[in-house]
Amino acid sequence: MIKIGVLGYGNLGRGVECAVKQNPDMELVAVFTRRDPSTVKILTEGAAVCGIADAPDWKDKIDVLILCGGSATDLPEQTPVYAEMFNVVDSFDTHARIPEHFANVDAAAKKGGNVGIISVGWDPGMFSLNRMYANAILPDGRDYTFWGKGVSQGHSDAIRRIDGVKNAKQYTIPVESALEAVRNGENPELTTRQKHTRECFVVLEDDADAAKVEKEIRTMPNYFADYDTTVHFISEEELEKNHGGIPHGGFVLRSGRTGWENENSHLIEYSLKLDSNPEFTSCVIAAYARAAYRLSQEGQSGCKTVFDIAPAYLSAEDGAALRAKML
Amino acid sequence: MIKIGVLGYGNLGRGVECAVKQNPDMELVAVFTRRDPSTVKILTEGAAVCGIADAPDWKDKIDVLILCGGSATDLPEQTPVYAEMFNVVDSFDTHARIPEHFANVDAAAKKGGNVGIISVGWDPGMFSLNRMYANAILPDGRDYTFWGKGVSQGHSDAIRRIDGVKNAKQYTIPVESALEAVRNGENPELTTRQKHTRECFVVLEDDADAAKVEKEIRTMPNYFADYDTTVHFISEEELEKNHGGIPHGGFVLRSGRTGWENENSHLIEYSLKLDSNPEFTSCVIAAYARAAYRLSQEGQSGCKTVFDIAPAYLSAEDGAALRAKML
Repeated sequence: MIKIGVLGYGNLGRGVECAVKQNPDMELVAVFTRRDPSTVKILTEGAAVCGIADAPDWKDKIDVLILCGGSATDLPEQTPVYAEMFNVVDSFDTHARIPEHFANVDAAAKKGGNVGIISVGWDPGMFSLNRMYANAILPDGRDYTFWGKGVSQGHSDAIRRIDGVKNAKQYTIPVESALEAVRNGENPELTTRQKHTRECFVVLEDDADAAKVEKEIRTMPNYFADYDTTVHFISEEELEKNHGGIPHGGFVLRSGRTGWENENSHLIEYSLKLDSNPEFTSCVIAAYARAAYRLSQEGQSGCKTVFDIAPAYLSAEDGAALRAKML
Repeated sequence: MIKIGVLGYGNLGRGVECAVKQNPDMELVAVFTRRDPSTVKILTEGAAVCGIADAPDWKDKIDVLILCGGSATDLPEQTPVYAEMFNVVDSFDTHARIPEHFANVDAAAKKGGNVGIISVGWDPGMFSLNRMYANAILPDGRDYTFWGKGVSQGHSDAIRRIDGVKNAKQYTIPVESALEAVRNGENPELTTRQKHTRECFVVLEDDADAAKVEKEIRTMPNYFADYDTTVHFISEEELEKNHGGIPHGGFVLRSGRTGWENENSHLIEYSLKLDSNPEFTSCVIAAYARAAYRLSQEGQSGCKTVFDIAPAYLSAEDGAALRAKML
């Protein structure tokens, strides 16, 4: 059994807990939290709930520690710290800062003789893998990534910070005609506006000015100004009833040409339709936790990404079974 | 530069030649043929055309030999023979015989100190990879593979063997409603008939009995009897004009559930739409030839499949560039 620890028990930590339950070769042994452990109820019988300060005591009782904090401030600090003590997996998703994060985790993991796998999930993660495979296969081509339909936590938060807004949920939606143009091999040049629309469901405070809030949303730089945005004002009950989930998904496409005179077209498409963004991310993380454990058992150390790990390391089945059943 | 040799110059061999041209770190140095080399014209200036018996003389002049023969009789013999002399890649696609082929190639490649990568292409190949990744991520789920719309060489050949048939092309077509049911998370149980239909374009000999030929096609065991089959009789000119290509493609889907009570559904879908089946297969092979070369440079030997090779080995870019641009 691979002994899993979870650091941070929010949506992602709970997702990892559920994923571990589905993998018969893994068990959750401890959850570490910054909250008072006595206030944190977890689902797994027999697993410990500990304060984050106790984590180092578990060094020899955990095979892989999964870091479930946020990318803005938690992971840049936590992943290097814990990679020195444990094999770790994180879902660091600030694309621009990945090279720096990789270097920090690599140094720490090597120092501790551990394996640290960063940026695991679906984007970065499975989407990155599909971009990479497709680029290697079709060197002469174009990449497209569309996100959605799904809830953007960052955009929902941005709306909630507006004066007069009580609650909000924002969906990112790919523009169907743009997707179709890519699928048809038209290789379109697409602006931000042409790729995605944004749909907002907003609950107002009692005294709020709807027109003012709507204008503030639509013109918000970076978040909404460059998009066609629709704003719906609804009640708190309706928000809870119809927009309570955290669905997401998206599409990675590469169109390319082959042949001596580039006479043939090809399209590679990978897509995800997810009821729960954090639970799916957690499932990917659990598979890579298995890889971290195995790589560590082989004596490897340092930072890795999804690009560096042979697919077979993710599976509970051995090579012969995989070749017989899935090749 | 990675020096590539090609053994067998049919559709696949020509496809590999085109793929090598698109990869700036590779060059085609020799093509080996069972035909009289003086009768074989290749596209690449400067590459040699040699008889198959000369291949051993090129042992030190070729980094990776790509075996472009057929899976029925060529590759089971050739891949082990040449894996003892060269790093090799093949596209062996008889799924049921892969374990046996793997064992033979593994023994030969280890004896020669070479790397042999087998069953490279899209199915087996990219489809297998996607089945494997999706299974590792969603342990509680169901797999579906649909092929097409595309030309099945085996089914076209089967029609051509019927008395009175001059020429034929057979398309395998996924049933759209079955695909939709899978995408909707209905987890349908699908019979052979419910998954694919078969469409045949047949050119008759002058004296042939159309009704008899059609009946013979529709009732042919294994090939057509279990499918809804449509037969169109057309002229040789029409066949050439409208059915001259070798398109193919298909869909790999896995639907699965997550959550403590399995309350959430997810769908992973990978699809290919290919103008030229052999050229796309060749592109995948070229990327794995790069991997074979690098693994061999690292001192590895033995048989590998797509499951055993970290994605980064396929790319001409280094790890830092991949992390910065694609993660």
